Amino acid sequence: MALSVEKTASGREYKVKDLSQADFGRLELELAEVEMPGLMACRAEFGPSQPFKGARISGSLHMTIQTAVLIETLTALGAEVRWCSCNIFSTQDHAAAAIARDSAAVFAWKGETLEEYWWCTERCLDWGAGGGPDLIVDDGGDATLLIHEGVKAEEEFERSGKVPDPDSTDNPEFKIVLTIIRDGLKTDARKYRKMKERLVGVSEETTTGVKRLYQMQESGTLLFPAINVNDSVTKSKFDNLYGCRHSLPDGLMRATDVMIAGKVAVVCGYGDVGKGCAAALKQAGARVIVTEIDPICALQALMEGIQILTLEDVVSDADIFVTTTGNKDIIMVDHMRKMKNNAIVCNIGHFDNEIDMNGLETYPGVKRITIKPQTDRWVFPETNTGIIVLAEGRLMNLGCATGHPSFVMSCSFTNQVIAQLELWKEKATGKYEKKAYQAHQGPV
Amino acid sequence: MALSVEKTASGREYKVKDLSQADFGRLELELAEVEMPGLMACRAEFGPSQPFKGARISGSLHMTIQTAVLIETLTALGAEVRWCSCNIFSTQDHAAAAIARDSAAVFAWKGETLEEYWWCTERCLDWGAGGGPDLIVDDGGDATLLIHEGVKAEEEFERSGKVPDPDSTDNPEFKIVLTIIRDGLKTDARKYRKMKERLVGVSEETTTGVKRLYQMQESGTLLFPAINVNDSVTKSKFDNLYGCRHSLPDGLMRATDVMIAGKVAVVCGYGDVGKGCAAALKQAGARVIVTEIDPICALQALMEGIQILTLEDVVSDADIFVTTTGNKDIIMVDHMRKMKNNAIVCNIGHFDNEIDMNGLETYPGVKRITIKPQTDRWVFPETNTGIIVLAEGRLMNLGCATGHPSFVMSCSFTNQVIAQLELWKEKATGKYEKKAYQAHQGPV
Amino acid sequence: MALSVEKTASGREYKVKDLSQADFGRLELELAEVEMPGLMACRAEFGPSQPFKGARISGSLHMTIQTAVLIETLTALGAEVRWCSCNIFSTQDHAAAAIARDSAAVFAWKGETLEEYWWCTERCLDWGAGGGPDLIVDDGGDATLLIHEGVKAEEEFERSGKVPDPDSTDNPEFKIVLTIIRDGLKTDARKYRKMKERLVGVSEETTTGVKRLYQMQESGTLLFPAINVNDSVTKSKFDNLYGCRHSLPDGLMRATDVMIAGKVAVVCGYGDVGKGCAAALKQAGARVIVTEIDPICALQALMEGIQILTLEDVVSDADIFVTTTGNKDIIMVDHMRKMKNNAIVCNIGHFDNEIDMNGLETYPGVKRITIKPQTDRWVFPETNTGIIVLAEGRLMNLGCATGHPSFVMSCSFTNQVIAQLELWKEKATGKYEKKAYQAHQGPV
Amino acid sequence: MALSVEKTASGREYKVKDLSQADFGRLELELAEVEMPGLMACRAEFGPSQPFKGARISGSLHMTIQTAVLIETLTALGAEVRWCSCNIFSTQDHAAAAIARDSAAVFAWKGETLEEYWWCTERCLDWGAGGGPDLIVDDGGDATLLIHEGVKAEEEFERSGKVPDPDSTDNPEFKIVLTIIRDGLKTDARKYRKMKERLVGVSEETTTGVKRLYQMQESGTLLFPAINVNDSVTKSKFDNLYGCRHSLPDGLMRATDVMIAGKVAVVCGYGDVGKGCAAALKQAGARVIVTEIDPICALQALMEGIQILTLEDVVSDADIFVTTTGNKDIIMVDHMRKMKNNAIVCNIGHFDNEIDMNGLETYPGVKRITIKPQTDRWVFPETNTGIIVLAEGRLMNLGCATGHPSFVMSCSFTNQVIAQLELWKEKATGKYEKKAYQAHQGPV
Repeated sequence: MALSVEKTASGREYKVKDLSQADFGRLELELAEVEMPGLMACRAEFGPSQPFKGARISGSLHMTIQTAVLIETLTALGAEVRWCSCNIFSTQDHAAAAIARDSAAVFAWKGETLEEYWWCTERCLDWGAGGGPDLIVDDGGDATLLIHEGVKAEEEFERSGKVPDPDSTDNPEFKIVLTIIRDGLKTDARKYRKMKERLVGVSEETTTGVKRLYQMQESGTLLFPAINVNDSVTKSKFDNLYGCRHSLPDGLMRATDVMIAGKVAVVCGYGDVGKGCAAALKQAGARVIVTEIDPICALQALMEGIQILTLEDVVSDADIFVTTTGNKDIIMVDHMRKMKNNAIVCNIGHFDNEIDMNGLETYPGVKRITIKPQTDRWVFPETNTGIIVLAEGRLMNLGCATGHPSFVMSCSFTNQVIAQLELWKEKATGKYEKKAYQAHQGPV
Repeated sequence: MALSVEKTASGREYKVKDLSQADFGRLELELAEVEMPGLMACRAEFGPSQPFKGARISGSLHMTIQTAVLIETLTALGAEVRWCSCNIFSTQDHAAAAIARDSAAVFAWKGETLEEYWWCTERCLDWGAGGGPDLIVDDGGDATLLIHEGVKAEEEFERSGKVPDPDSTDNPEFKIVLTIIRDGLKTDARKYRKMKERLVGVSEETTTGVKRLYQMQESGTLLFPAINVNDSVTKSKFDNLYGCRHSLPDGLMRATDVMIAGKVAVVCGYGDVGKGCAAALKQAGARVIVTEIDPICALQALMEGIQILTLEDVVSDADIFVTTTGNKDIIMVDHMRKMKNNAIVCNIGHFDNEIDMNGLETYPGVKRITIKPQTDRWVFPETNTGIIVLAEGRLMNLGCATGHPSFVMSCSFTNQVIAQLELWKEKATGKYEKKAYQAHQGPV
Repeated sequence: MALSVEKTASGREYKVKDLSQADFGRLELELAEVEMPGLMACRAEFGPSQPFKGARISGSLHMTIQTAVLIETLTALGAEVRWCSCNIFSTQDHAAAAIARDSAAVFAWKGETLEEYWWCTERCLDWGAGGGPDLIVDDGGDATLLIHEGVKAEEEFERSGKVPDPDSTDNPEFKIVLTIIRDGLKTDARKYRKMKERLVGVSEETTTGVKRLYQMQESGTLLFPAINVNDSVTKSKFDNLYGCRHSLPDGLMRATDVMIAGKVAVVCGYGDVGKGCAAALKQAGARVIVTEIDPICALQALMEGIQILTLEDVVSDADIFVTTTGNKDIIMVDHMRKMKNNAIVCNIGHFDNEIDMNGLETYPGVKRITIKPQTDRWVFPETNTGIIVLAEGRLMNLGCATGHPSFVMSCSFTNQVIAQLELWKEKATGKYEKKAYQAHQGPV
Repeated sequence: MALSVEKTASGREYKVKDLSQADFGRLELELAEVEMPGLMACRAEFGPSQPFKGARISGSLHMTIQTAVLIETLTALGAEVRWCSCNIFSTQDHAAAAIARDSAAVFAWKGETLEEYWWCTERCLDWGAGGGPDLIVDDGGDATLLIHEGVKAEEEFERSGKVPDPDSTDNPEFKIVLTIIRDGLKTDARKYRKMKERLVGVSEETTTGVKRLYQMQESGTLLFPAINVNDSVTKSKFDNLYGCRHSLPDGLMRATDVMIAGKVAVVCGYGDVGKGCAAALKQAGARVIVTEIDPICALQALMEGIQILTLEDVVSDADIFVTTTGNKDIIMVDHMRKMKNNAIVCNIGHFDNEIDMNGLETYPGVKRITIKPQTDRWVFPETNTGIIVLAEGRLMNLGCATGHPSFVMSCSFTNQVIAQLELWKEKATGKYEKKAYQAHQGPV
C-alpha cells in the first residue's frame, strides 16, 4: 500500500485497507457488544462522568472487532484515540474500517509488511505538533519499545552526534526501528523525549511485553509507569487459557479442515496458553503430547494424563505441532525436515520467532506452495514430502481465524479500561513511579 | 446461472460455478488424499483389476473436496461417473471445478435454487440415449426418489393418459419434481423405466434416505436393490458422531465467532448426531441441555451429566440451539420469538425442515439482516431483538463451514466403495433382491 | 464352611455366612431401593396382579444388595425364589443374610471354594421332590450349563451305562461339575431331565452366557427358550459401560489407594466394558493405552485420542493393567515378569481366565504377600520386584469393591423382570422355541 | 480409650489403637514408598548428611500411611519425632501402629473424642523435662494454637493470677483447650513459654492454619517463624485440586455405593478444593452446580460449563452436596430439612463447621440411623424422609476413605521436608523473623 495518511470527511486521519467495509464491520461490532458485557458495563458506569475527557490514548493492539469495542469504550468515556495493530496479520479490515470511519484514527490492515507495520506504529504515536499520547495501551510492547529506543538515540545523538546504524543489527525488524528513529532525528531531535515527558503511563496486555517491562524496571531504564494487565486473573487465566482453547481449533479447522480427532498433537509449552491448547486438542479427540522445561508445569500435564516428551522424541510421529512457549527457536528447520508428510506446524505464542521461518525459507531447494492465504505447504527436496505452516509462523489464531472470541476479550479489555482509568486518575498524585505494577490478582 | 450444459475440451459435460478454481481444488484434493487412507487403500487394492470397467455411476452427494476423492476413487477403479450435490448449499466450488476439469461430469454449485438443484439431479442421471446409470450413490435419496416418481408417473400415464400435476402438492420442492417428470413425459415416456431396467442398485449414505428405502421396501414399491451404508458402524457411528463433533463447533465459530464456553446450548435430539454435538459443545465449555423423546437416549444423556428438558423449558434462557433429530418442526417461529437477543439457531440434521424457516420468513414485520452469507439476524418487531439463524436452517456444518473432515468421510466413503463393488460384482447373480440390505455392522 | 443346608424359623432353606448381618443388609437394601426406580416401578405396576403366582424362579447371579432388590421384586410379583451367586467372591454377606431371613432361599457367601460354589448352584436348582424351577435367571450360564451337562450325562448313562469321568478333563472347575452330575446319577438318573421338562426358559444376564446360548442354539443342543437380556441397550450399554466406568476406579481405590492421575493404564479390549474402563481412567487423569484386535473398536479408541498398542509394547512401562476382553489368556505370567515394580494387574471381564493366575501361582520361586484380602503382591525371584494382583484375577469390581451401583443395576434387572414376565406369560403359547431371543434393542 | 501413655520395648512412648496392626501398616507403607518419589528422593539426597541430627520435631497432621512415610523421611534425615493427628477421624490405625513400633512416638487413633484429641496434641508437644520441640509440622494450626494460648495464659497468670476459665467460651473444643492449659498451669507455669523459647519455627500445611498465622502476624502476636507450605504450587494446586479430585469420589463410593452418574451434585465453593471436586463429579457423569461468592471463581466455573446458583435455588432438587469453602455455616439444618430423600451431605473442607451438625443433632424429633461407621441417615419427623451425612460433617475423604493418595501427598510433604530443613539450617542466622513466609511459588 502507498504509505500516505488519508482523512475522513471530519478530518480524522486513517490508513486502512478498504473503508467501504465499514458497514460490515459495524454489524459485527454490534454483535460483539452483546458478547462483551464487561466493556458495556464500563460504558454504563463511567460514561456519564467522561473520566477520559482531554486524554489522548494511543493503542498498539490487534485491530480486531473486539478491539473496536474497546476503542469505542475508551471514546465513550471521553478519550481521543489513535490505533495500530501489534501484528502484521492480525487486523480485521472491516473492524478497522468501521473504527476509522466512526470513532478513532486507525493505521492497520491485514498483511502489512514490516516497514508498513512500523510506519503504522509511528503514526499511532504521532499526535502532531503537540507531542505524543497521554496514555498507551500496548500489546507486546512495541509502542513502548519505540519510545524507549527513540529516547536512547536522541540522548546519544545529543551526547556524541552519533545516529543509530541500522546495519548494527542482524534482526530485520530492529533494522527498521533504527531506520525510523535515525530518520526522525533529522527533523526533530527531541520528538521521543517530548513524548516521554507527556506520557502518564502504559498498560501492557501480554506476557512478552510484561517481561520487557520488568527487564527495563530492573535495569532502571523504564521511562514511565506501567500497569501489568497480563497477570490479572481475568486476563492471563482467561484470555490465554480459555481464549486459546477456543481459537486454536478454530484456526486449525479454518486453515486446514483437518480432523483433529485421532491425531497426535504436540504442544510445546504448558503455561496458560499451552494448557488451553492442550485442553482443546484433547477434547477434540487428539492424543496430546507436551514438551515442557518447567518441572511444575510438566507435573501438571502429567496429572491430566498427558505424556511429556522432548520434541526430538516425537518429531517424526506427530501430526500437529503448536508452539506456546513465549521463547524463541522452539521448532527449527531441522525438526521440520524430519516431520511426517503434511504435518501441521503453527504458533500461538505472541512473537513469531518460535518457529524457525528463516531457516525454512532459506533451506536449499525447499518449495513453498500456497494452498490459500496463511496456509502454506513447504516441500523438502530430499523427501518430496511437505509440511503445512500456518500464518507464516505468526499467531495462527489471528492469522487463520478471528482471534479470541469477544467474551474472553471483554474480560481482558475491561482490565485495560480499569488500568487506563487508574493511571489517568493518579496522573498528578505521584502514586505510580517508573515501575511495572501488577493489577489486583485475586484468587485463581 | 443459465442452465446450459458445458463441455470440457475432451467433451465431458459439466456445469459448475467457475472452472478456473480447479487448481485450488486440486491442491486441497491432494491434501485430502493424505487424510483419507480408506479410499487410498481401495485404490491400491482394487485399482489394478479395474473392477468398475464398463460401469456408469451416478452420484447425488454433497460435492465437496472429500466427495471428490471418492469420485476419483471410483474412476480409479474403472468407473465412468456423473455427479450432483444433494444439498443446494453444500457444494465446494473449487472441488466441483477440479473434478469437472479432470475426472467426471459434475453439475453442482454452492447456492443453487431448488429449480437448479433438480435440474442438476436430472443431468446427473442422464447418460444420454443409452439410458441411465448402472449404479447410484445416493445421499438422502433424491436420485432414487426421482426415478421412483418418474416410473410411477410413466405407468400412470400409460394407464390413464394422466400427467403429474405440480399443483397437486403444497410442497414447493415436490412441485418441481412433478414439473420435471411431466415435462420429461413429453419427450420420452419410457425414460425412467429404461433407467430402472438398467439399474443394478443404489447405495444410500444417510438416515433419511434409508428410512425412505425401508418404507418403499415395506410397501413393495422399491424398484431395485439397495445397500444401507448409513448403518455401518464406520458410517453412522463415525460420520454422525465424530463428524458432527468436529463440524458443529467449526460451523458455529466460522459463522458467528462466538465464544462457546459459558453458553447454555440446547441440542434437540440425542441420537448419534446429537451425541456428537452435545459432546463438542460440552467440551468447548458450554452447559448443554438436551431435548429428547426417546427414553433410552434420554437416559444416556443423563448418564453423561446432561440435563434433559423440553424446548419450552429453556427457550428463553439458552444461547445456542441445534436441531439434530431428523424429524420436522422442531423449532417453530413461536419458539424463536421468545428467545434471547442474538440467540443462535441452527440445524445439523439432514433435511431443512427442523427449523420453521417458513414461519420465520412470513412472520409479520420480521426483519432480516444478513451479517454475511449464511449468517442472518432476524429481528422481531415486538421486541426489536433478534436471533441469528445459520445457513437458512439447512445443514450448518456444510453451509457455514466445510462439512465433515476428510478422515471421517474416508470411513463413510470406503463403505460406499465396498457397497458399490458388491452390487456390481453380484449384478447378474440374483444375490440381491429389491430390498434394502444392511452392510455388515460389527461391534459398536 | 460345613456344607449343610440350614432353615429359617419359617422353614425356608439357606446357607449364608452370618444371618446376624440381616439388619445391616436390610438398611442397605432400603437405600438401594431409592436408587432402583426401574425395579420399584415394576413392583408398583405389576405387584397388584401377582403375575408370578405359582412360579418357581432359580437365580444364579452375584448375591449383592442390588440383586436382593431384584429378588424381592420377583417375590413381590408372586414368585417363589431360590438363589446362588455366579462368582465365588461376589456375594455381599449382609445382602445374602437379609434375603435368607426375609424373602428367599439363598446359598451364597463371599469366598466360596469351587466345590462350595457348585454345591450352592445345585441347591439353587433343587426344589425338592417336585423337580426344578419354572424359570431361571442366569448370569454367565452356569445354572444352564449344569442342566445341559446333566441331561447329556443322563442320556449317555441310559444309552451306555457310562457315567461322567471327572478325570476326563483338565479344567478343575469342570471336574467338579462332572463329579456332581456323576454323584447325582446314583440317586436319581432322571433328575436333570425332569428339570428340563418343567423349565419354561432362562433369561441370561451377560455376554459370556449369551455366547454359550448361541453356540448351543447353533449346534441344536439348546434345551429350552432363552432370552438374551445382555444385549438390551439398557443392559449392555448401561451396565457394561456406565457400571464399569463407576466400579473400576472404585475397586482400584479401595484395593490399593493408588493415585490414578499421572499413571499409565493399559485397558485390554475396547468393547463396552473396555470403553467404560478407559473413560474412567482417562477422566481420573491416567494416560490410557488400549490393546484391541477388532479394527472398528480400535478406530473408536483412536477417535477418543487413545493410543492403541500391543501389550508387548507397553508391558514394562505401564502402571495399571485391566483386562476387559471376555477372552482368555490375555495377560500371561511372562508378561507379568516384565512389569514395573508394583504394577497393578486386574480383571473386570466376566470370567477369571483373562489373567494367567495358574502360570503366576506355579512360577518357580514366586512369593505371594497378601496386603489385605483380594490384594496380593506377587514377588518374582529374579528381580525381587513385585506386581499387585487384585481379586485373584477375578472380577475386581465385585472382589475389591461392591460391584456396579444400584442405579445401573436397576436398568439391567428391570430387563430381567420383563424377560421373566414374558417367558412366564407365554409359557403355554409356543411363542418361544428352543432358541435364544434378543430383548428389544432400540436406538443406541 | 484409657488415656495412659504406653512404651515400646525400646522405651519410646505411644498411644495407638492396636500395635498388632503394625505388620499390615508396614506392608502398606512399603507400597506407599513407591508412590512417593519426592520423599524418597529427599532420603537419598539428604539422608547421608543427617541434617536433622539433634532436632526434635513434633507433628500434628493426619496420622495416615502417607504421613508415616513423611515421618520416616524426617527420622531418616536424623530427626527425633513425636506425632499426633489433626483430626479425630483421620488416623489410619495400622499406620499409627507401624510408626509407633518402628520409628516415632505416636499418639493417635481413628475416632478420638475431643478430649482425647487434645490429650494427644499435648503429648505430641511434650518432650519431657527438657521442654518442647525444635520444630513443628502443623496442619490446621492446632499445635501452634495450643502453644500461643498457653503462653497467653501463663503471661496473664503471671500478671494477674487469673487462670483460664473454660466456661468463658461456648465452643466445646475451645473449652477443652482452656481446661488443659488451666490444669497445666498448676504443675508448670512456664511450660509453654519454655516451648516457645526453644522453638525454631513451624511449617504449616493447610489454608486454615495459614489464615490463622497471617492473622497472628498482623496482630503482632505470632511467637515464632512460620513457613506457609500450603500456598506452594505443588501443595495447594496439587493436594487441594488433584487430591480432592481423587478422594471425593472415593469417599462417596465407599460410604454410599451410590452411582454418581446421572446425579445432580452441588459443590459449595470453587476454590482449588472445589475445582477438584467439581471436576471429579463431572467426569463421573454428575450434573454439577456450584455455589460461589467470589466473582472470578464463579466466572471460572462458568467457563467450564458449570451452572452457578445459590444453595437455596437447588436445595430441594440435588442429590449430592459437598462443602469446600473453608468458611462456616454453609449447609444449615434448615437446608437439610428441604432436601430430597437420601440426599447425601458431606464436607471436604478442613474444619467441621461447614455443615450445621449441631443444628441437625438438636433438631426436634430427628432420628439418626447409622448405616455403617461414618455413614448416618438422619430422618426428619415432618416428612419421614432422611438425608445421609458422611463422617459426621468432618473431612469425608479421610473419614470415609483413606484421604489423598500417596503420590499427591508426596508433592505436599516434600515441601514440608524442605521447609523444615530450611528452618533448621537457618535457626541461628536470624534469617527468619516472627512472620509467615511463603515457600517459593513458581508458575501455575
